[in-house]
Amino acid sequence: MAKENLSIPRGTRDFGPQQMMVRNHIFSTIRSVFERFGFAPLETPSMENLSTLTGKYGDEGDQLIYKILNSGDYLSEVQPEDMGKGHKHLLRKISEKALRYDLTVPLARYVVMNRNALTFPFKRYQIQPVWRADRPSFGRYREFYQCDADVVGTKSLICEVEIMQMIAEVMSKLEISDYIIKINHRQILAGLAAFCGAAGREADMSVSLDKLDKVEWSAVASELLQKEFSEEFVQKLDGLRSGIISISGPEFLALSEKMSSNQLAAQGFSDLKTIVSFLAGFPQVLEKMRFDISLARGLSYYTGPIFEVVPQGVKVGSISGGGRYDELTSVFGVDGIPGVGFSFGIDRVYDLLSELGKTSEMPSSASKVLVVQFDENQIPYYLNLLSDLRKAGIACELYPEAAKLKKQFAYADAKKIPFVIVAGEDEIKENLLTLKTLSDGSQEKLSLDSVLKRFGQF
Amino acid sequence: MAKENLSIPRGTRDFGPQQMMVRNHIFSTIRSVFERFGFAPLETPSMENLSTLTGKYGDEGDQLIYKILNSGDYLSEVQPEDMGKGHKHLLRKISEKALRYDLTVPLARYVVMNRNALTFPFKRYQIQPVWRADRPSFGRYREFYQCDADVVGTKSLICEVEIMQMIAEVMSKLEISDYIIKINHRQILAGLAAFCGAAGREADMSVSLDKLDKVEWSAVASELLQKEFSEEFVQKLDGLRSGIISISGPEFLALSEKMSSNQLAAQGFSDLKTIVSFLAGFPQVLEKMRFDISLARGLSYYTGPIFEVVPQGVKVGSISGGGRYDELTSVFGVDGIPGVGFSFGIDRVYDLLSELGKTSEMPSSASKVLVVQFDENQIPYYLNLLSDLRKAGIACELYPEAAKLKKQFAYADAKKIPFVIVAGEDEIKENLLTLKTLSDGSQEKLSLDSVLKRFGQF
Repeated sequence: MAKENLSIPRGTRDFGPQQMMVRNHIFSTIRSVFERFGFAPLETPSMENLSTLTGKYGDEGDQLIYKILNSGDYLSEVQPEDMGKGHKHLLRKISEKALRYDLTVPLARYVVMNRNALTFPFKRYQIQPVWRADRPSFGRYREFYQCDADVVGTKSLICEVEIMQMIAEVMSKLEISDYIIKINHRQILAGLAAFCGAAGREADMSVSLDKLDKVEWSAVASELLQKEFSEEFVQKLDGLRSGIISISGPEFLALSEKMSSNQLAAQGFSDLKTIVSFLAGFPQVLEKMRFDISLARGLSYYTGPIFEVVPQGVKVGSISGGGRYDELTSVFGVDGIPGVGFSFGIDRVYDLLSELGKTSEMPSSASKVLVVQFDENQIPYYLNLLSDLRKAGIACELYPEAAKLKKQFAYADAKKIPFVIVAGEDEIKENLLTLKTLSDGSQEKLSLDSVLKRFGQF
Repeated sequence: MAKENLSIPRGTRDFGPQQMMVRNHIFSTIRSVFERFGFAPLETPSMENLSTLTGKYGDEGDQLIYKILNSGDYLSEVQPEDMGKGHKHLLRKISEKALRYDLTVPLARYVVMNRNALTFPFKRYQIQPVWRADRPSFGRYREFYQCDADVVGTKSLICEVEIMQMIAEVMSKLEISDYIIKINHRQILAGLAAFCGAAGREADMSVSLDKLDKVEWSAVASELLQKEFSEEFVQKLDGLRSGIISISGPEFLALSEKMSSNQLAAQGFSDLKTIVSFLAGFPQVLEKMRFDISLARGLSYYTGPIFEVVPQGVKVGSISGGGRYDELTSVFGVDGIPGVGFSFGIDRVYDLLSELGKTSEMPSSASKVLVVQFDENQIPYYLNLLSDLRKAGIACELYPEAAKLKKQFAYADAKKIPFVIVAGEDEIKENLLTLKTLSDGSQEKLSLDSVLKRFGQF
């Protein structure tokens, strides 16, 4: 094969060491917060039976599922007359498996298959890639990771509270301070539609209302009128839409008063107030939370509180979102299993850290120290030195060849290894090491103990 | 969909929380050792262009590659006459992408695409799943993880030395003490064939010799005779085959003397002796290393030292292996890039830990403490308590409902959460917590500080 032809499929990416160091930092931050909150890991296969996935994401979603060709002679079950019946017909004969499209349907499938063995409430997190045959564009990939955490089998609002806390904790550990958590409630949306005179039409209403973060109210209003909502409805809605307001402030309370005659809305507001009251001891979480009556979240299976994490003052959009659902597993014929979950979009988080200039601060190489190789005869000496450094938890490496010093330093530089240890004949005689700091070019002759102590400071 | 029909594809697996806790422990152990030795992470896409993968694994391998159906109307490029030409012909028209089969070809592809930007020697590790349309059986899966580490772009035997050290380090951290590292050298095999009178036939010879760990010498001998190796060859070979001997003992030296007239063998023995001399300061590594002249390793691209990690006294076979290759990227038309690499089989490691009874010792839940919910009105109090525990690094959770005590304890029990904190009206008044240890049923009333100190001991 000619080397010029090499490429990777559109919409997929290689993650080289520098990107991976940042990505692993994000993954391990999220994972450690999930675990600290008592969530346990789950992994499901990349491939699911095609029948498990189809019909779960709508017609458009079904088109975006990657199908895997049956192995061996995939045409063995195909009759000549199947050929003329089109690709959808043929598909059932040549493909039985597909790549997972998200982590929610596999969770539902897992819960159904293991419902008699699992202990509920089941708190699981799952960090795995998903695949979508979408048109690739900026920020939209065909393979990307999702980081989901769900509590399945309880209606307790403590779960929502802990999700708010986990979001704040992850953001704090990633040193992202300028963001808000938008929150709304599906029953408030249902109540709003009814209150304004279009009971049952909350889905239609929400699709338009959801655009308020991108367009003016007038555009939303005319879209609603086009959808045959009445003038009166639009007027009433205009009087109630709140903008993005504090979840614990007087405006929020006033709005809940205004709509209190509607039972659905009242239940929604009551849930949100309960969440706020549980968070009384956590002002650093509460101050991030904003009520936004226009927030709808696309997926239709949400039934309670819904939320989205939106960084402020940057181009990157929401980096996390989720909500409560009453029926996780009813698509598989098992009813009565409620839950709540949310997901971090790892690529968005990466893009955000990058936009904030934080990716360059993060380590780009695993090694903290390069030990220069002066003299082949000293290799056993170098290997002992490396072993001592590693025992002290310091990632390090020996340049594998006795190359010119310049070349070895260039290697450390290119890989952003911050320190170089030189141990030549003199140093070895004196039982000392020369430690060079590449950022400022400084160097010191130190004993091994002093070097280890120095690294203890980092 | 009827729930009875739910299943996952054959040869794939769900990993529930208990398995994942063990798997994550294995992954993070391997990852931390790789990083401590200066290896940096790389991830490549799950899908590669089909043309990148085909022709790299032999005809049989090509059959085992999972192909992905083109998205949308995959028949749009297909002409009526294509239909009769069989599945191999049709494949090129309906599938352009495939799931990766291993991590080595993607590494080679990555190195070729980025060879002008990369700093060599390039030390990368990669921990990702691979897919093979193999017949599933005990220990053989269609989706499984590989954990590879390679040094690309140097012939230095220091890399082999560090791989031996990494293997010993991983095994020690996983508390696996009874294993050997079998080592051989491709040039010793070439030399052996020549020395016995069949120069150039080392591949044929090795395939038979490799079976010595399963069958008697007589069976190997008659297989060799069937392959038209001479009686004299078989006799000479019988005199030289060493069994599994210490790499630093007199038998090894004697064998190297016997074959010293053959240049290929001499180079091979010289390499192995260099590795041994570099490891002089590491008796705990050397004592695990055994020379095994029958070790061949299947893949033909190895050219130097080859090795395999074999646990002793258990059913599980080799859990790790690798070797040196002269030409990583020549399949993509780029020559002169040598390297050395090895891989841990995570499923084998899991099976080994399980056979050794070590998986039950490992944590099966992320939470160390369950806080019992006595009284809904105390939820803010409980949440503050959880927050204090988590700040101290203790993974914990609150039972989300004020259920009966019995139910809450059963939950902790089923999830193997080792401690339960009960804070009822009395405790809250006294500013104390009741800490119950589930393993022995003991309980103590302690201050929060004393609880935190108690956990500091674990």
